[in-house]
Amino acid sequence: MSETASTRTPLSPTPRSSLTRSKERGRTDRAELDAVLDAGMVCHLGVVRNGSPVVIPTIYGRDGDTLFLHGSTGSPNMRAAMAHDVSLTVTHVDGIVYARSAMHFSMNYRSAVIHARPVELTDPDERMHALRVIVEQTAPGAWDAVRPPNKKEMAATLVLAVDLTEASVKVRTGGPRDEQADIDTGGVWAGVLPLRQLFDAPIPAADLEAGVEIPAHVRRRCSDTAAAV
Amino acid sequence: MSETASTRTPLSPTPRSSLTRSKERGRTDRAELDAVLDAGMVCHLGVVRNGSPVVIPTIYGRDGDTLFLHGSTGSPNMRAAMAHDVSLTVTHVDGIVYARSAMHFSMNYRSAVIHARPVELTDPDERMHALRVIVEQTAPGAWDAVRPPNKKEMAATLVLAVDLTEASVKVRTGGPRDEQADIDTGGVWAGVLPLRQLFDAPIPAADLEAGVEIPAHVRRRCSDTAAAV
Repeated sequence: MSETASTRTPLSPTPRSSLTRSKERGRTDRAELDAVLDAGMVCHLGVVRNGSPVVIPTIYGRDGDTLFLHGSTGSPNMRAAMAHDVSLTVTHVDGIVYARSAMHFSMNYRSAVIHARPVELTDPDERMHALRVIVEQTAPGAWDAVRPPNKKEMAATLVLAVDLTEASVKVRTGGPRDEQADIDTGGVWAGVLPLRQLFDAPIPAADLEAGVEIPAHVRRRCSDTAAAV
Repeated sequence: MSETASTRTPLSPTPRSSLTRSKERGRTDRAELDAVLDAGMVCHLGVVRNGSPVVIPTIYGRDGDTLFLHGSTGSPNMRAAMAHDVSLTVTHVDGIVYARSAMHFSMNYRSAVIHARPVELTDPDERMHALRVIVEQTAPGAWDAVRPPNKKEMAATLVLAVDLTEASVKVRTGGPRDEQADIDTGGVWAGVLPLRQLFDAPIPAADLEAGVEIPAHVRRRCSDTAAAV
């Protein structure tokens, strides 16, 4: 994370990570990839099993130019992720674009698509670090407040590292791009309906003992809706 | 959509649509699939290109046991979607589950995973119907208010039908499932931080002429945050 933009590989460095459609939405600055990944908690991981793709939602964490995934050692999807290249996508929907014609309806969004061959981490310290990164991406500030994984839990967990070199980012912002003829005709409302996610008030567990207050790292999130993904 | 539950194929009818992990989260009632799909606007479509998976976000529309996709006739991903089976996933994240130990952190979510070989629609009426379904899923009430696709636009558009027979649904709700030893130790806050999406006030297009009011089908959405995906 200490690398400067100038020393990092630009986005879309390979044919399969290069955009073929709506190229004007493509970004090249790696900081834009970081921003899309850091604003998310769930990615859609595409693996190939028996020749067919399987797309599953899963949590992740980013550390520099590496993204970490985890799963059960018995997970066929995680096993498949080590046997073939995967595609991994994070998408934020920011609004619905209402146009004057059906074909110009669109979405405002930010999305990142990664191509990589995940690698299993075997070093205990690296594995523990990766799990910390994943938990902190999902629940910032939580790792130090809870019991860390024990040996039995670690033994049942597969931790994968995904190199972020082969990545593309697409972003659409702004209003509809209507045909001039439809604009001239007029009479149809056009614009954007913004969409965002926010956190509601936390719900304590049914088995939480009395007297345990909601910690600052949770409280902070509820009020900070601007930072919500 | 007029079929009753009893005449419809249950979910997870094939090995690749059957759950291998967290089976207790699996659902069998096809109405649960309808609900997950109808609450969404963007799916993650996994296709295979040159032997590697590619996962892209795209809008869709459901009509009964069929899901429609569209894209440019020049889109390599859409072309790939007709050449091989695809996987197509819709996910709603409903909350972050804070546990007393790192390994029990989780998400509350609803997700549907479809496996199918998309089929290109060629009949003009079927194609127009599919585009209506897609626009209405993204922007309910909008189709009749805007200019429909013309011949040139239709010629540039690929419309695919995805059969929903081979589908699985997973749902997680509720609080953390902590180890009894961690509950007994106590002192750690545990619970759920709910997450939801909502629509903000609509933003008229910069080129919208004066006097065109925000239509009821857009206004209705903003106030109805309960229906937000």
